Amino acid sequence: MQEKILQLLEDRKYGEIAALVKDMNPADAAAMLQELPESKMPLVFRLLPKELAAETFAYMEGDAQEVLIQGFTDKELDEVIGEMFLDDAVDMIEEMPANVVKKILRHVDADTRKMINQVLNYPKDSAGAMMTMEYVDLKRRMTVEQAFERIRSTALDSETVYTCYVTDGRRKLEGVITVRELLLAPKDAVLRDIMETNVKFVTTHTDQEEAARLLSKYDFLALPVVDAEERLVGIVTVDDAMDVMQEEATEDMERMAAIAPSDKPYMKVSVFENWKKRAPWLLFLMISAAFTGSIITHFETALAANLVLSSFIPMLMSTGGNTGSQASTTIIRSLSLGEVRYRDIPQILLKESSTAVLCGVTLAVANFLKLMLLDQVGVAVALVVCLTILAVSLVANLLGSLLPLFAKRVGLDPTVMASPLISTILDAVSLVIYFNIAVAVLQI
Amino acid sequence: MQEKILQLLEDRKYGEIAALVKDMNPADAAAMLQELPESKMPLVFRLLPKELAAETFAYMEGDAQEVLIQGFTDKELDEVIGEMFLDDAVDMIEEMPANVVKKILRHVDADTRKMINQVLNYPKDSAGAMMTMEYVDLKRRMTVEQAFERIRSTALDSETVYTCYVTDGRRKLEGVITVRELLLAPKDAVLRDIMETNVKFVTTHTDQEEAARLLSKYDFLALPVVDAEERLVGIVTVDDAMDVMQEEATEDMERMAAIAPSDKPYMKVSVFENWKKRAPWLLFLMISAAFTGSIITHFETALAANLVLSSFIPMLMSTGGNTGSQASTTIIRSLSLGEVRYRDIPQILLKESSTAVLCGVTLAVANFLKLMLLDQVGVAVALVVCLTILAVSLVANLLGSLLPLFAKRVGLDPTVMASPLISTILDAVSLVIYFNIAVAVLQI
Repeated sequence: MQEKILQLLEDRKYGEIAALVKDMNPADAAAMLQELPESKMPLVFRLLPKELAAETFAYMEGDAQEVLIQGFTDKELDEVIGEMFLDDAVDMIEEMPANVVKKILRHVDADTRKMINQVLNYPKDSAGAMMTMEYVDLKRRMTVEQAFERIRSTALDSETVYTCYVTDGRRKLEGVITVRELLLAPKDAVLRDIMETNVKFVTTHTDQEEAARLLSKYDFLALPVVDAEERLVGIVTVDDAMDVMQEEATEDMERMAAIAPSDKPYMKVSVFENWKKRAPWLLFLMISAAFTGSIITHFETALAANLVLSSFIPMLMSTGGNTGSQASTTIIRSLSLGEVRYRDIPQILLKESSTAVLCGVTLAVANFLKLMLLDQVGVAVALVVCLTILAVSLVANLLGSLLPLFAKRVGLDPTVMASPLISTILDAVSLVIYFNIAVAVLQI
Repeated sequence: MQEKILQLLEDRKYGEIAALVKDMNPADAAAMLQELPESKMPLVFRLLPKELAAETFAYMEGDAQEVLIQGFTDKELDEVIGEMFLDDAVDMIEEMPANVVKKILRHVDADTRKMINQVLNYPKDSAGAMMTMEYVDLKRRMTVEQAFERIRSTALDSETVYTCYVTDGRRKLEGVITVRELLLAPKDAVLRDIMETNVKFVTTHTDQEEAARLLSKYDFLALPVVDAEERLVGIVTVDDAMDVMQEEATEDMERMAAIAPSDKPYMKVSVFENWKKRAPWLLFLMISAAFTGSIITHFETALAANLVLSSFIPMLMSTGGNTGSQASTTIIRSLSLGEVRYRDIPQILLKESSTAVLCGVTLAVANFLKLMLLDQVGVAVALVVCLTILAVSLVANLLGSLLPLFAKRVGLDPTVMASPLISTILDAVSLVIYFNIAVAVLQI
């Protein structure tokens, strides 16, 4: 596709390009434009039909949008922003540098500007910042037929018309009704009698992840957002909720790998940004690991007396780290899916310690066989190693499951207690256990 | 809520319970029922209004559904399954033991049974197994008014009426039109003229993750599923796509923590299942780590000559592991979000090695200062440690980013190359680098 368009550009066959792109899906058109050289992008963008152009623009990434905006005439800017849904426009504006934002806000009409400014003021990652203010609102006295008229008259500007909200004179939420229910109801039925009054909602300050989770839990297409006075101010839509869920999962994974999260796709992150995301954690973990090293120094005499002991250090440390990271990852993910609560803690501890015993015995037995048959070390040394594995397994499962719960309890993100930190803590703990058992059993 | 209902049960005030639950949201009602003692669940379930009961049933978990089914009369079973959407019914049946499946299939009508059997035959995790066969199909000659009649007549049985598919006499997909577009069109317009003909679709064998990703990419509420002859057989809906995305993210996280994935929530997984999910990986990684231990044994003389060297082993191993897990997690997630492709490999390598140099220098400088000022080791030893950090950082970033790409290339799940395995490989690599630099610099 790209190559064909580049060839047609070369030959100045603009009519053929227009014919080629006019039926494209906006997401595909955006991908295609972004693959073109920057100098050609505005030209091809102008060949898109007006409505498709605005939709395509919404799907493009920040830097490509910026290139286009810089080249827009005032009229083009007005058309594109005017056609965009409000939440897409706000998402875009949030990524633009200040001079571009000024240019945009200068050229949109007063109402849109006011709404954009309002949404920009909500805290980052809140339902308020994620919502759109374009929705269908109905009144309780309307008949089904009147409701459809109202929906028709607002459908052009509203992202989601399928879930309609019934509000009173002061915009307080009274009920909800879907287009499906309206289609099934007789034309002269009154909304008051058929609407659902048990309405689920979030406030503008609810965390966006919580909003997405509710939307998914109830299988809604949209979720209403109310302000402090419980007046309806906007809706969160299912497509944005999906994006939020993916972003949050990515963030969790990054934190679990000791990376400060960012919301840019990989190929857009510069080397310097990569360094800023990764180096602080590496530095912190390196310093913590140096502490583990000092434990080895502390037991230097014991090690010198029995040099074979040092060869089991990597295996014991890695077993502790892996066991702890299994438990912590399991608990962190369960917490973020809402599968476990604090009152489950006794059950979690019971489950994890039983699992620890089962896994620990499995590993210890396998190790004992290997030590006796393959490595042919003395029984005393084999005993030290296997006892350590059992103890480490228990401690690793308990710490791995408790620390994320504890982090959440004191208001930290549980993901900070993920594999890298847990492993580093467990490295030290495993060594202390190991050397103490060694000193006791081998009497060195 | 639970306590109130338990109290009312105690007092046999069933009417009050019915009044209390009749307006509940089905997801909430399901959660409430599952918290009740098993013996009380069927009683309270029967107090729900008929339609709510069926919806609530769909939201319940497998073991609770089983308890209810075991107690259902034939009539109740027929009512509940008949009211359920087909894809929910299939999801439920997949979790039931064989005797319950038989009981269910014996009591549903022949058409439903045929459809259930068909969906059950698609491969697990395919779009076919995830889809529902209840959708709105229209014909190209219909007017908007006729289309609405058709939608009204099927709305009761269809999960998603908002995206309608236009098919020809042989059920081949010709176009798509949304209810929003129908609402905006004049009543006498003919579908042929207003439908979108560039239809995105998947086949019954497409992976469910790919289907969910497409749905999210194009912001669709539903995505059509076609068979090998390109005939429309069902649709995948956005609520199921959200669930699939969450499940896949959980699976990826579990694999990244060396846990065999399962799709049960944490509190439902037994200790034995936990053991089965975790012990094999622990065993495998432990054996691999033993190999690392043998490297230490191999360099025993060098270590004995310079005992301080052994105290840096944990720090170097952990730095290697952490660096590698940062790179591998980043690439694994980017692969699963479709952010990087094979042809980006040269750029990825350039980016990761530059990042490695930046991070490596940062860590080496910090370490050098600490070694000279705090630990007061000799310059030669400090040099060995810092050179090792630089080399390990480079190798860890390159291996961490290349191995997941390689795994995907040869048809493996890239997540097998996540932190635990990468760390274990890097432990060994780091030690070999360390000891070789030590032997060369210190001439031992």
